[in-house]
Amino acid sequence: MARIVVLGGSFGGLTAAFELKRLLGKKAEITVISDEDNFIFIPSLPWLSFGWRRREDISLPIKPVLEKKGIAFIHAPALGVDPEFSKVFTSQGEFSYEYLVIATGPYLAFEEVAGLGPEKGYTECIFTLPQAERAFKAWQRFLEDPGPVIVGAVQGVSCFGPAYEYLFELDSELRKRRIRHKVPITFITSEPYLGHFGMAGLGRSRRWMEDEFAERDIRFLTNQAIEEFTPQEVRLKDGTGLPFRLAMFAPPMKGVPAVKDLGNPRGFIPVDKNYRHERYKNIFSVGVAVAIAPPEPTPVPTGVPKTGYMTVKMARIAALTIAKEIRNEPLPPGEEIGAICLLDMGRTAAYMKSFPVLPPRQEAVIKKGLWAKALKIAFERYFLWKMRHGLSHLP
Amino acid sequence: MARIVVLGGSFGGLTAAFELKRLLGKKAEITVISDEDNFIFIPSLPWLSFGWRRREDISLPIKPVLEKKGIAFIHAPALGVDPEFSKVFTSQGEFSYEYLVIATGPYLAFEEVAGLGPEKGYTECIFTLPQAERAFKAWQRFLEDPGPVIVGAVQGVSCFGPAYEYLFELDSELRKRRIRHKVPITFITSEPYLGHFGMAGLGRSRRWMEDEFAERDIRFLTNQAIEEFTPQEVRLKDGTGLPFRLAMFAPPMKGVPAVKDLGNPRGFIPVDKNYRHERYKNIFSVGVAVAIAPPEPTPVPTGVPKTGYMTVKMARIAALTIAKEIRNEPLPPGEEIGAICLLDMGRTAAYMKSFPVLPPRQEAVIKKGLWAKALKIAFERYFLWKMRHGLSHLP
Amino acid sequence: MARIVVLGGSFGGLTAAFELKRLLGKKAEITVISDEDNFIFIPSLPWLSFGWRRREDISLPIKPVLEKKGIAFIHAPALGVDPEFSKVFTSQGEFSYEYLVIATGPYLAFEEVAGLGPEKGYTECIFTLPQAERAFKAWQRFLEDPGPVIVGAVQGVSCFGPAYEYLFELDSELRKRRIRHKVPITFITSEPYLGHFGMAGLGRSRRWMEDEFAERDIRFLTNQAIEEFTPQEVRLKDGTGLPFRLAMFAPPMKGVPAVKDLGNPRGFIPVDKNYRHERYKNIFSVGVAVAIAPPEPTPVPTGVPKTGYMTVKMARIAALTIAKEIRNEPLPPGEEIGAICLLDMGRTAAYMKSFPVLPPRQEAVIKKGLWAKALKIAFERYFLWKMRHGLSHLP
Repeated sequence: MARIVVLGGSFGGLTAAFELKRLLGKKAEITVISDEDNFIFIPSLPWLSFGWRRREDISLPIKPVLEKKGIAFIHAPALGVDPEFSKVFTSQGEFSYEYLVIATGPYLAFEEVAGLGPEKGYTECIFTLPQAERAFKAWQRFLEDPGPVIVGAVQGVSCFGPAYEYLFELDSELRKRRIRHKVPITFITSEPYLGHFGMAGLGRSRRWMEDEFAERDIRFLTNQAIEEFTPQEVRLKDGTGLPFRLAMFAPPMKGVPAVKDLGNPRGFIPVDKNYRHERYKNIFSVGVAVAIAPPEPTPVPTGVPKTGYMTVKMARIAALTIAKEIRNEPLPPGEEIGAICLLDMGRTAAYMKSFPVLPPRQEAVIKKGLWAKALKIAFERYFLWKMRHGLSHLP
Repeated sequence: MARIVVLGGSFGGLTAAFELKRLLGKKAEITVISDEDNFIFIPSLPWLSFGWRRREDISLPIKPVLEKKGIAFIHAPALGVDPEFSKVFTSQGEFSYEYLVIATGPYLAFEEVAGLGPEKGYTECIFTLPQAERAFKAWQRFLEDPGPVIVGAVQGVSCFGPAYEYLFELDSELRKRRIRHKVPITFITSEPYLGHFGMAGLGRSRRWMEDEFAERDIRFLTNQAIEEFTPQEVRLKDGTGLPFRLAMFAPPMKGVPAVKDLGNPRGFIPVDKNYRHERYKNIFSVGVAVAIAPPEPTPVPTGVPKTGYMTVKMARIAALTIAKEIRNEPLPPGEEIGAICLLDMGRTAAYMKSFPVLPPRQEAVIKKGLWAKALKIAFERYFLWKMRHGLSHLP
Repeated sequence: MARIVVLGGSFGGLTAAFELKRLLGKKAEITVISDEDNFIFIPSLPWLSFGWRRREDISLPIKPVLEKKGIAFIHAPALGVDPEFSKVFTSQGEFSYEYLVIATGPYLAFEEVAGLGPEKGYTECIFTLPQAERAFKAWQRFLEDPGPVIVGAVQGVSCFGPAYEYLFELDSELRKRRIRHKVPITFITSEPYLGHFGMAGLGRSRRWMEDEFAERDIRFLTNQAIEEFTPQEVRLKDGTGLPFRLAMFAPPMKGVPAVKDLGNPRGFIPVDKNYRHERYKNIFSVGVAVAIAPPEPTPVPTGVPKTGYMTVKMARIAALTIAKEIRNEPLPPGEEIGAICLLDMGRTAAYMKSFPVLPPRQEAVIKKGLWAKALKIAFERYFLWKMRHGLSHLP
């Protein structure tokens, strides 16, 4: 009976655990370790920051759903990994493994820009539940006395989607309240152009996004690096200062400390096409924890986004590879993965499909419509239902 | 009984007079002073310059419609205003007032560019009835031997709409006559980009306008200041010379001489949100006479446009404020105004809505279609009917 | 009986011969001289290079169709023309003429760029049947091991359409085979911008083409001159090197050697509006052989395209002029010609209309759709049928 440890209880960790159980059944003893005892549907955090969702709408206790499937759950932070002796250290003791799946997501490196982030800085963030709840409070305070808003992504960011979503949602909320004209909005990004997304654009994303910005009266500055944030101002590297009363900025990401020794200089895990560690053959990694080389260098550094859709795909490939290896069957060929993203735009949404993720692509689709908004809401419900029932595939 | 003098007999002056009468009835003795004894529906002047309208189609004698409403009319140029002693000087004597409404429109400052204008220069203009009639004659001469046409707006212009209208109408006329290919057309403007309109653009006006120009084969030069016009050539500040056989250029505007001492250095009247003079509390000003700060400095100077729609809105707010003050009622809160514009494009037209006038905006709409053309024609008839019956509001 | 010699057996030559016969009947003795004994429907050559057509689908023996109409055919290369003594020299002897129609098409000047062309260089071409057949073989080899592709037009090119067609067809083929993501495609052109086509663009062709490229994930470099091609790389004048596994480049064109002494420095024949030689009154020229001045100088040299449609128009005007002159009737006024082009785009096509060919234009239309693709296929069948029956006009 193979002892498998999964680090992380979000998209990648749960999908990997469920899929391994589905494939291996009693052949595997699976343990999920996470410092978070709730599964959070992260794509809905921007909605929470405008009061469109509450905490309970998008959370799910992990322990019961795992145990129902016969998977153990350890609620503890991972402290480190010893790849030579195949051990994970946690605050609740050490766990040895035959296979390890690292699905730890990102460490948010707020410290890389002075004044960035909600804790030690002056900008909101919407990448974790507490941040989004804090952002909602900031939004409520802001409404009492509106003024300039700045939204964006600093240098080194790889996840631009939520910044765009927050921006469009903010614009929508302000229009609904009929006070849009009291709020100059500026988007500041490290992308070389709008709609680059860290992935060299997607079809005609650039012109599309520029038109959307024009239509919504949102100013933008691309190719920007931030010098620092003060309580009321963002200072760009080029010396420009822009005042704000509310700011939301995506931070750079790194690998989490517990696994960073297994990764590249930024702590992301180098893997092969089956998501197996390039050096340690019994370690796999999926999701944001994985290292992906950018398609082209950008003047201001950016990284490649890893969406929930990609993470789930990676987790299934990694789980299948482990299962085949345990059962001594031929390994699956590493398959090229694509990305599907439903970008929320407030009163509407856009459906984006990219295959493969980076250019040149066989498919590059952007379509906007209310149907995409409906699909986004439906998917939230569907995915939470799937997790609640421990399904990694539809039955 | 309050003695109110209104300077100007166009959109702002007549609307203010009718509205004051409607609100105050016998409580007010209202006198309109104008050097022009006809109301001219100015938005139709571009049509007149292509022979699509005649003088009588768009004119209305002011005196009878005012007198029918019990409003006095003095056909005389205003020569000056003494704000300390509340007096207006005209060629027909002086008039004292308790309230003064300045709706004098623009002074066209052709002298600011050498060779500009139909009288002392070599370019046509369509901002007054005589100019438009002259432009029609120039157009007829041009058709006998067509060649290059240059249309545009010099540095310091604040009213770009008619230049665009003239341009599109010219293109349409030439296509209808199937000689478009004999006429290279160039648009030269002080705007930083097409569709800026002196108001930092409107939604996606820039790309929209660039596409319209491309489709119509109209070349353009933005960000231009004119050095001088000669009989056959325009010389740009950068040294370029472009030949023309017909040129129509919008001139810069200033406040008219009679009121310029009440205004800023360009003679425009500084007002508060109720269109009351910032210093003289019994003087109001509406329409083009009013000073509006530009939303952003442009590389080549431009001003903010004031459309007929805005002028009517201002006139109503000013009249309401005066009426309330006379009746000792609480004054209306100054309200943010927007602009609606029907931009003629020859065989079609565009509907533009901006609220507020300058960004950031709650609403920014551009729609093109035959319905907008029909609406434009209907509005011309409707407004002339309204003026003929002395209506400032629908009954 | 007038002795008329026509040089060339393609669009221009056959149309001129048929039209002269139709107009003059027994009044003329017409001889067509060509080094090619088949009429090739050149617009379909890009299709042949992807295996969508075979040689026999688009070829037609010239001799029988000419003879059926009472026109003589000499299968021999023209070696020179003596305009003073009205003689044409060929490998099969000399032919004297009263009227000469030069419809010799282009000489492809591969030697102007090092490494250009399929014979002495490393790039494919699709302007002649043998080239297109060779290109098809190169394509089949390429499919065994796909990699980067470069398509484009070098400095001095005047015929850009086929390069765009080849590009879009390549993209379509790769998508159909679902290997588009294995093939980075770059388009390199001497045009100042995409969609310039050597004719200063066509309506909103630039933005349209940029959108099409973005949607298809095709990179592009405009305003480029090529230093040289090596077996695996193109080197631009600016020093950049781009690797390729397959390259297709349009070459510059010149007049063919046999008539170059009658032409301008590039060997193109200077003609008046009736396509009569500016100096030799009994010589006419139509099609690619004709000199057309570019509408504007481009930073990297380009020329004006002459499409099949234009060639046919020219041939009819030239034939009519000759016929009228022979019959001592008033000559037709030289008429402005336009161009209609059906640009193949793989799974779709675009209809383009330009009147006149160069700006400013009375008409400039671009429409894309499956109907344009259907029309393109139908036109191929129709034109071949027309040539087979010796029709220059519909009966």
